[in-house]
Amino acid sequence: MSQKTQIGKLALLAATLSPDELEPFSEKLEEVKYCIGKAGSMDTQKIIAAVETAAKRNGLIAQDVYRETHALYHAILESLEGVMRGQLGVGNMMRTVGLRFSIVRGTPYDQKEEGEWIAVAFYGTIGAPVKGLEHETCGLGVNHI
Amino acid sequence: MSQKTQIGKLALLAATLSPDELEPFSEKLEEVKYCIGKAGSMDTQKIIAAVETAAKRNGLIAQDVYRETHALYHAILESLEGVMRGQLGVGNMMRTVGLRFSIVRGTPYDQKEEGEWIAVAFYGTIGAPVKGLEHETCGLGVNHI
Amino acid sequence: MSQKTQIGKLALLAATLSPDELEPFSEKLEEVKYCIGKAGSMDTQKIIAAVETAAKRNGLIAQDVYRETHALYHAILESLEGVMRGQLGVGNMMRTVGLRFSIVRGTPYDQKEEGEWIAVAFYGTIGAPVKGLEHETCGLGVNHI
Amino acid sequence: MSQKTQIGKLALLAATLSPDELEPFSEKLEEVKYCIGKAGSMDTQKIIAAVETAAKRNGLIAQDVYRETHALYHAILESLEGVMRGQLGVGNMMRTVGLRFSIVRGTPYDQKEEGEWIAVAFYGTIGAPVKGLEHETCGLGVNHI
Amino acid sequence: MSQKTQIGKLALLAATLSPDELEPFSEKLEEVKYCIGKAGSMDTQKIIAAVETAAKRNGLIAQDVYRETHALYHAILESLEGVMRGQLGVGNMMRTVGLRFSIVRGTPYDQKEEGEWIAVAFYGTIGAPVKGLEHETCGLGVNHI
Amino acid sequence: MSQKTQIGKLALLAATLSPDELEPFSEKLEEVKYCIGKAGSMDTQKIIAAVETAAKRNGLIAQDVYRETHALYHAILESLEGVMRGQLGVGNMMRTVGLRFSIVRGTPYDQKEEGEWIAVAFYGTIGAPVKGLEHETCGLGVNHI
Ligand SMILES: [Mg+2]
Ligand SMILES: [Mg+2]
Ligand SMILES: [Mg+2]
Ligand SMILES: [Mg+2]
Ligand SMILES: [Mg+2]
Ligand SMILES: [Mg+2]
Repeated sequence: MSQKTQIGKLALLAATLSPDELEPFSEKLEEVKYCIGKAGSMDTQKIIAAVETAAKRNGLIAQDVYRETHALYHAILESLEGVMRGQLGVGNMMRTVGLRFSIVRGTPYDQKEEGEWIAVAFYGTIGAPVKGLEHETCGLGVNHI
Repeated sequence: MSQKTQIGKLALLAATLSPDELEPFSEKLEEVKYCIGKAGSMDTQKIIAAVETAAKRNGLIAQDVYRETHALYHAILESLEGVMRGQLGVGNMMRTVGLRFSIVRGTPYDQKEEGEWIAVAFYGTIGAPVKGLEHETCGLGVNHI
Repeated sequence: MSQKTQIGKLALLAATLSPDELEPFSEKLEEVKYCIGKAGSMDTQKIIAAVETAAKRNGLIAQDVYRETHALYHAILESLEGVMRGQLGVGNMMRTVGLRFSIVRGTPYDQKEEGEWIAVAFYGTIGAPVKGLEHETCGLGVNHI
Repeated sequence: MSQKTQIGKLALLAATLSPDELEPFSEKLEEVKYCIGKAGSMDTQKIIAAVETAAKRNGLIAQDVYRETHALYHAILESLEGVMRGQLGVGNMMRTVGLRFSIVRGTPYDQKEEGEWIAVAFYGTIGAPVKGLEHETCGLGVNHI
Repeated sequence: MSQKTQIGKLALLAATLSPDELEPFSEKLEEVKYCIGKAGSMDTQKIIAAVETAAKRNGLIAQDVYRETHALYHAILESLEGVMRGQLGVGNMMRTVGLRFSIVRGTPYDQKEEGEWIAVAFYGTIGAPVKGLEHETCGLGVNHI
Repeated sequence: MSQKTQIGKLALLAATLSPDELEPFSEKLEEVKYCIGKAGSMDTQKIIAAVETAAKRNGLIAQDVYRETHALYHAILESLEGVMRGQLGVGNMMRTVGLRFSIVRGTPYDQKEEGEWIAVAFYGTIGAPVKGLEHETCGLGVNHI
């Protein structure tokens, strides 16, 4: 692969691993800006809002530039496709959800003109209304910013 | 989380990490059966066939039991939703793809009656016809078997 | 229900039942025009063509009126959504398929101005490349004509 | 077809036919466990909950085993794809809906190792906010359990 | 193109252009019945209701004939696919939306038996919760009526 | 609307109008870079390739910068959602298609930091295998570049 920094892989690991498990990747993580957050609601709107808020609070995207919000928004949507696996339409259901997300911003390519890209990853569980009755789910979205 | 073995997380790591990076998870991986493979075609049919063949060859599913092929097939489809992010319909396009996949079979739950489950993960790149013009993508599907 | 003739139910039965089993519904079937056919290919294009050809050959739609072809086409697409269950995008796969279809044209409603409607039903099996490794599937599409 | 018991066909008939019309299939129905119910809401969540509740109350799935709830849940989702025909996303709309559903659990295949499978069928009407302005719709989902 | 009246093009222009810009097309617009309206809500249900209400109030479809409501409903849904671009499932989100719609009814084809058709177009902006952070969107649905 | 240049509207008009009809918008078109092309194939891959080739040949995107190809690719996909209206999965069918497309690149917003955006519009007909049996279709995709 011709990428110098795999922002998608780093996003996946940041969303999936415990701090201890993430330790071996700390050097790689210094090449990017990133943050981590949680979304406990099954409501698609609230999940999107949680990621956007985290991104702005942690300075991963500019507060008032639509261009950056737009890039992030489509990365979130792509990531949610993996989480929901074709069932975005039945999203807001009476189900438990426990998702961790990460946002990674960096320059994956050697060529300077490729510029900055953003990756959004989700990892967690999704399941029946009764807690504990659930299985794992994950998603990754990548976009130019 | 109430799961004793996170087969989804293990599948993600097996598909994403290099052998060295996977090393710290080797103990956890001993709790499950798993295999790894590659799919270099953009053709959805060929990707599915590659995973099914690897699963049978490595003894992850029974050769002649439809029940197990069915469980795997739907896990693959769910995983591909994450890879294609809502674009399964434009799948067989003139694009490069370099995907690694993993299949993990195990017993994620404490309760014996929850039985065996299967996870399929993809990680790699997807992009323009010219190699190098691509970004990362990933998917995870989980099913009872 | 306010419908005098349930063309959807008749289409489902005509696609699903054996001639003997269909016998009790023969009186109801006299209220409509209908035909039955088979589609053995997994190729979405060929399935659509098979239904359109059967409809024209059996005089269920007019040969050269786009309006009627258009009504039938969207009824077929809706019915295929049920058959493929969100996987239209992975349609042309290396899987066995054995589908029976029926087309029913009639006047379901009491009010004369509701005019003619058309129903397309599929019933059969869909499965792994090896014959016998498959499960049942069905679809129903209804449109004004 | 190599299936000894067509649980999908039985589910379709149980959801579609009146008790009198179902009579000729009573012998076949003795080979399976099944129940019937109604869903009058257009709200996807409420439809899913109605089917899950009926399944548990009638002993078609185990109360506390996630594995069985998971199998049923995906069978319901597949069946709803047929009902909504690609419009799951516009599900909770101001429309009337009158659906009957059935759940069938049995052993469709000769081979013992294929085990138990579950089928969920919907049949009814879907339409404009004004009652009577509606047409028929149907869906079938089949899963291993 | 063999169409004498391009109802889709007229619908697009009526939804997109200012009265002044629409002026050169006034002669063409005399060949059809049409109306224009606005939808400021992001709620898919409310958008559909706004279009249906406008269509009935302006005499573009018959008040009590389901056939015509059905034709319009599917034209709206097709048009919304263009507006939402595969994201119908995340429709009711905390986003701003400013849409103009038009409904055009006419006889696009020379042949008398092709009868009347209906076109629904949307044009406007869709975007982040903060007004002004948005981009353009459009959709067109065409159906026989 | 807070946009100084509506690149989406210009793309729609460039794809839809004849040279004469486009005349009144020539001043607005001078604010952007744009080009027009044709796609006569029903094959989604060939449509995408036709737009990408036109964009590169006319200098609308840089030849070797993936970032720009990526921005254009997602704008094309969004536009195709409008053209196919949820049927991307049945894309490569035996149907006639006659599409005109336009690509517009410009700076829609007053604020300098919003930078350049790209719009892709399609307008034409889609229909049965027999030419003339078809109706209009359209799509619009907008992305930051
Ligand atoms: Mg991309
Ligand atoms: Mg599941
Ligand atoms: Mg309908
Ligand atoms: Mg299946
Ligand atoms: Mg059409
Ligand atoms: Mg956008």
